[in-house]
Amino acid sequence: MSNGNPKVLNKPTENQAEKLSKSQRQFLRSLHQKKYRYQSGRFLIEGLKPVTEAVLASFPIESVYIVPDLYEKLNEKERQLLDLLKGKIHFVTIRDIQQISTLSTPEGIIAIGVIDQPVLAGNRLSFPGIYLWEINDPGNLGAIMRTARWFSVKNIILSPNSVDIYSPKAVRSSMGSMFFLSGFQNVSFEELCSSAKQNNVMVFATDMLGTSLQSPPTVPWVLVMGSESHGLPRHILTSAARTLGVPRYGSGESLNLSVSVGILLYQLIHSGKV
Amino acid sequence: MSNGNPKVLNKPTENQAEKLSKSQRQFLRSLHQKKYRYQSGRFLIEGLKPVTEAVLASFPIESVYIVPDLYEKLNEKERQLLDLLKGKIHFVTIRDIQQISTLSTPEGIIAIGVIDQPVLAGNRLSFPGIYLWEINDPGNLGAIMRTARWFSVKNIILSPNSVDIYSPKAVRSSMGSMFFLSGFQNVSFEELCSSAKQNNVMVFATDMLGTSLQSPPTVPWVLVMGSESHGLPRHILTSAARTLGVPRYGSGESLNLSVSVGILLYQLIHSGKV
Repeated sequence: MSNGNPKVLNKPTENQAEKLSKSQRQFLRSLHQKKYRYQSGRFLIEGLKPVTEAVLASFPIESVYIVPDLYEKLNEKERQLLDLLKGKIHFVTIRDIQQISTLSTPEGIIAIGVIDQPVLAGNRLSFPGIYLWEINDPGNLGAIMRTARWFSVKNIILSPNSVDIYSPKAVRSSMGSMFFLSGFQNVSFEELCSSAKQNNVMVFATDMLGTSLQSPPTVPWVLVMGSESHGLPRHILTSAARTLGVPRYGSGESLNLSVSVGILLYQLIHSGKV
Repeated sequence: MSNGNPKVLNKPTENQAEKLSKSQRQFLRSLHQKKYRYQSGRFLIEGLKPVTEAVLASFPIESVYIVPDLYEKLNEKERQLLDLLKGKIHFVTIRDIQQISTLSTPEGIIAIGVIDQPVLAGNRLSFPGIYLWEINDPGNLGAIMRTARWFSVKNIILSPNSVDIYSPKAVRSSMGSMFFLSGFQNVSFEELCSSAKQNNVMVFATDMLGTSLQSPPTVPWVLVMGSESHGLPRHILTSAARTLGVPRYGSGESLNLSVSVGILLYQLIHSGKV
């Protein structure tokens, strides 16, 4: 284990790599599964960008496992960020990283983050936000979080039966954006609506027949999206104040979910602005 | 092998599944690799949606391998489409599909498509189109093709050192949209520009500092995008007539590539329209 001594941090070598014990490897691998993530309150953050963004956002990190070769190649900013975690950095071999990674060709860095899930109470939801109804693709969720951060939409709200926000692929595809957002999980549509009503928030549903916005709404809003394959159920479509969509000029049954969210956020935030 | 007899097609059973020979399996697996795709002029189309879209688009298909269970569950439209290929349909076991699939949980259908790549001559490129510079993510390419079809942008042009348009993941994530588009590969930026000039086409580059369009251009155009990690090189940025971008209201270094393309196509095609 690194002792936080700057000399050690600056010149790690393969020899200084510690060997993970079998139980350490088993614990880290167990975090690939949702059940064990919530049992331990921990999740994996894999990749240099996601890990450094977590540090930048002051997100609670318990440990970082990195191969000396990658550490040697960090640029100054990346190294400064990682060095804020001194004492929590462990140099390990690429063989150990391969054993705990969720990737076939791992980058060489994996951190353990602490699950810091806002507990939902209706009036604690904030807006504007995106409500995702039963979506199951973690890559889409990650790309949506990245887009939300870009457009400064801070609240990502997930329905029951949606993908876990702490799944390794969602974390990785968000490229660290999730650490700059508030995530709410297991929020029923009824809870969402009651909170929206209390806060005078406009509920926008989306489907194939929805029309595009000409100018951003003047009140806070929440954008409600379903999965690519099933869309939104009728009771959600009929409860919404308005239905938005991306006009189709060609053919095809649907857009990729994160592409739709991008175009709709652009409408909600930018349309009509110079 | 199915003989195209409707009775056989309507009631396939596991017993009727043929066993693929070792050399058939080897050939199908070899198509996971670019080298063998171009050597044989064949590529894999995996998944029900991509295969049925290929049939709908009259794309040349050599064979379809499907498990009887999946065939039994097809809806009427899917079955009608597949039955257009009678004589080319082979019922196989799920074990065989697993051996040739590129997925960990295959859907149960894989077709062999015939590579039908337009040979580039400068004046054969057509517009409007999207030019992708050294992009390497097949999932992004697939999502971009889906968006292009939605917005009726028919031409996808790839630079040298870009991902292969026939890679199994690009084909699959396009959800069959690629069969409704024209793909051009290995097109240098110089060739693109010379063709654009001859056809009076406006070249739009994209980067972080680009501004958004207020109304669609009145001349044909090509949208030039780089990879998420490297963007576009200076010589491309300076050659373009104008640089477009997605305004950032929050933070983050970049958007997912297919999300950026979606927002930019929306600007190019819809902005300002009611």
